[in-house]
Amino acid sequence: MQDAGRIRDDLTGLLGPSRLADDATSARAWRDTWVISVWRSLGDAPPPRPACVVRPQATSEVSAVLRYASRERIPVVPFGAGSGVCGAILAPPSSIVLDLGAMRSLLGIDEQALLATAQPGLLGSDFEAALNAAGFSMGHFPQSIALSSLGGWVATRSAGQFSTKYGNIEDLFVAFEAVLPSGAVIRTRPVPRAAIGPDLRHLFLGAEGTTGVLTELTFQIHPLPEATGKQAYAFPSMRAGLEALRRTLRAGWRPAVLRLYDAIEAGRSFSGAAKPEESLLLALTEGPAALVEAELAALAASCRIAGGRAIGPEAVASWLVHRNTVPEFEFFLNQGMVVDTIEVATRWNRIDELYEGVLARVRQVPGVIVVSGHSSHSYATGTNIYFTFAARPDRPDDLEALYFRIWDAAMEATLAADGTVSHHHGIGRVRRGWLERELGSAYPLLGTLKNALDPLGIMNPGALLPAPGEPAAANAFPPAEAPRAADPVGPGSDTA
Amino acid sequence: MQDAGRIRDDLTGLLGPSRLADDATSARAWRDTWVISVWRSLGDAPPPRPACVVRPQATSEVSAVLRYASRERIPVVPFGAGSGVCGAILAPPSSIVLDLGAMRSLLGIDEQALLATAQPGLLGSDFEAALNAAGFSMGHFPQSIALSSLGGWVATRSAGQFSTKYGNIEDLFVAFEAVLPSGAVIRTRPVPRAAIGPDLRHLFLGAEGTTGVLTELTFQIHPLPEATGKQAYAFPSMRAGLEALRRTLRAGWRPAVLRLYDAIEAGRSFSGAAKPEESLLLALTEGPAALVEAELAALAASCRIAGGRAIGPEAVASWLVHRNTVPEFEFFLNQGMVVDTIEVATRWNRIDELYEGVLARVRQVPGVIVVSGHSSHSYATGTNIYFTFAARPDRPDDLEALYFRIWDAAMEATLAADGTVSHHHGIGRVRRGWLERELGSAYPLLGTLKNALDPLGIMNPGALLPAPGEPAAANAFPPAEAPRAADPVGPGSDTA
Repeated sequence: MQDAGRIRDDLTGLLGPSRLADDATSARAWRDTWVISVWRSLGDAPPPRPACVVRPQATSEVSAVLRYASRERIPVVPFGAGSGVCGAILAPPSSIVLDLGAMRSLLGIDEQALLATAQPGLLGSDFEAALNAAGFSMGHFPQSIALSSLGGWVATRSAGQFSTKYGNIEDLFVAFEAVLPSGAVIRTRPVPRAAIGPDLRHLFLGAEGTTGVLTELTFQIHPLPEATGKQAYAFPSMRAGLEALRRTLRAGWRPAVLRLYDAIEAGRSFSGAAKPEESLLLALTEGPAALVEAELAALAASCRIAGGRAIGPEAVASWLVHRNTVPEFEFFLNQGMVVDTIEVATRWNRIDELYEGVLARVRQVPGVIVVSGHSSHSYATGTNIYFTFAARPDRPDDLEALYFRIWDAAMEATLAADGTVSHHHGIGRVRRGWLERELGSAYPLLGTLKNALDPLGIMNPGALLPAPGEPAAANAFPPAEAPRAADPVGPGSDTA
Repeated sequence: MQDAGRIRDDLTGLLGPSRLADDATSARAWRDTWVISVWRSLGDAPPPRPACVVRPQATSEVSAVLRYASRERIPVVPFGAGSGVCGAILAPPSSIVLDLGAMRSLLGIDEQALLATAQPGLLGSDFEAALNAAGFSMGHFPQSIALSSLGGWVATRSAGQFSTKYGNIEDLFVAFEAVLPSGAVIRTRPVPRAAIGPDLRHLFLGAEGTTGVLTELTFQIHPLPEATGKQAYAFPSMRAGLEALRRTLRAGWRPAVLRLYDAIEAGRSFSGAAKPEESLLLALTEGPAALVEAELAALAASCRIAGGRAIGPEAVASWLVHRNTVPEFEFFLNQGMVVDTIEVATRWNRIDELYEGVLARVRQVPGVIVVSGHSSHSYATGTNIYFTFAARPDRPDDLEALYFRIWDAAMEATLAADGTVSHHHGIGRVRRGWLERELGSAYPLLGTLKNALDPLGIMNPGALLPAPGEPAAANAFPPAEAPRAADPVGPGSDTA
């Protein structure tokens, strides 16, 4: 392990003093928004900090940092905007955090080929606003869009709210420049499609910064749509609503948005839109006017067959306004509660089992106040469920143990329904211990890839895969700090 | 290098004598349908054969062969159906060919989750027929469908004629079982979508058998469509037709088939459908009836704006009947001619340059009789051009040199238009020498991947990447055999 002062001195010599982050940046850029990291950072004994946070302004500077880190065997943690919720960013002591926030330029829009190229630190909402001004949209709207960076989207395999039409990040990510752990810079070219060996984009998509650093990204974009249609439906049950989704996708329709909330979430977020026991489907279709019209009609037919009733577009309009507003984890932690979300997915023939199984198992965990779910990303083969839970331990010291018991319950129930343990938030540290069961016999290939691309093991060690010597389980890493002294206040709340 | 007799004896002992291929199979399973291999196999001194061809009947047998080959350091060449046209299959002397043709079972159809699982040796047309009988289709129709295997589709990154709607093989390939070079068997699970690290499918997609052997494949399927619409258009030029394609895709429409032939190909294959100097667009849309209707109307508008005129559906109907009928390379070789196809792609803003540049450069090569092209796979960002050329050398001995001069011209013109050197036929040996320029600074990653997954280098050496010590250029490998004595007969023909 290197001395932190020497690392700072070396990097100052390498990049100049202006590239060392200021105190405010350093205070936030060592972790993402995993609720456990938030909790620990509120405690009396926050985890040890990295050696330093550097803010490169060019690919050549990223390369210089990685060459240095390779030579000195220093861990490097690429940091986008820190909005991840799985603990993929949790910089080890004496590591270098490579904060890409200063590399945030839009580099160009190709209006003919429908491509836009930008630097990794650009925030999603800034990118989308620039595209909108030119008459385009990326069509990628994660809830975190104002808080997350383009590089982070690729690194975590992000999904957007309009994914049913436009696809997920892997469908939109066309070409890139990246710096390998050695410092070597590689670039690919934007072509429509190719058959030239394994697709190298997938060495970085979902790798969570463990294989290198993306320094330039080219995405497919779309002209702003000609028309938009909105409609909401109420269903007597989640099963009925899921059946409507399945029928719609199966027939070949791809409405941009299909969000099916269970009764708890419908009542919480769209009170009065449906009856108290009903599930609520929000649908939005966009594109050419004739497609929108046909898709709305097809959706109406699928919903009718599945037992739904149309309730007008108002709930969809309301969602569009409020869709990215969520309370911060800290708000609940300060009340002695832990709130988190768990998004998983499975095939249509197992989805009822998954939804009902996760709810049942999580509700059995003592301390759970509420758990609910919605489907937000549908495919011909299946859909996801995005669960939200709130729980309160008897004592603050038990919060982490309670949290991990809930996650264990949800992951077990997901795997029991042959689902995937992560639909789009990624792995980070919270799910790391489940990857071996997720991937089974294929699990060792992740390590093979990691070792091939990062033979020195310097890139974001501990994310996705345990660092050498670490246990995989999330509740074993990072080691819990001293118990937190804060006393929770206020009654339990059900506003997750 | 091992003694061929001993390898045969060892494999007989390992698998039993019934797994050693008969003479007829052995006579065909050492190469694919690369025209240069066909040419050489017609000559007086055909290339040396592999040690043996084995036909495993189960994954465990594939594993046993790979364990043996790893221990003995013997090259293994996975063979599907041999329909590839790039030389990905060209078994080195003393290698083992793993002919997967006996593993051709359909293992199951999941009618709810729209998935079908089969073994790798199953022919595409048999798979599709079985799906049709159950009311489904894969929606994947390479021209080779009756000659190519499911495993080969994934290994070469196949594209089908209906790809604009259903996607290419990477969009349809959901899960797999594979045997790694060590003999280890790995399996992934079919889930709708996941964010669980790098997508392991891409270690085998396009790898051309250089990373392992696929032994089970799960694909997305679709219910048979409710409706189909057909329409053809004539355009004054390829530029005008390409503009119609671009407008259609840009607006968000995805007709299943959009095939735009230049005047040479329109005249050759659809004589009378358009005027002699016109380009011909065949369009087919399928899916829900309302979608088909809206898509036909949108296409009509795009074509009208771009200067096209509707000429009825007859040419589309004719194409549907004859679409997979092509003369064999041998027919032309026996007339002293070499005929081949070259499919490349680029972005919309470079596509005119690519199309015109390849034609111009290839036409400059002395000996070229005709070269023509069509676009058959379009995307929001660009399209492919599928070129066909016919050429005749002054002397049969010059055929290979002429062939490689033509390929050089086409590849140079493609790269000059910032295109990709392969849209969907893959790399094999014919394009191997171009991959370094295709991928540039990213090229070394292909070798990194190969070495990580196949550290002993036994898997299909020479495909995709040169084997150790080999030059990359196709015209340098494999070394040409003794000159061919056959005397070409018959006049030049323009029926490619």
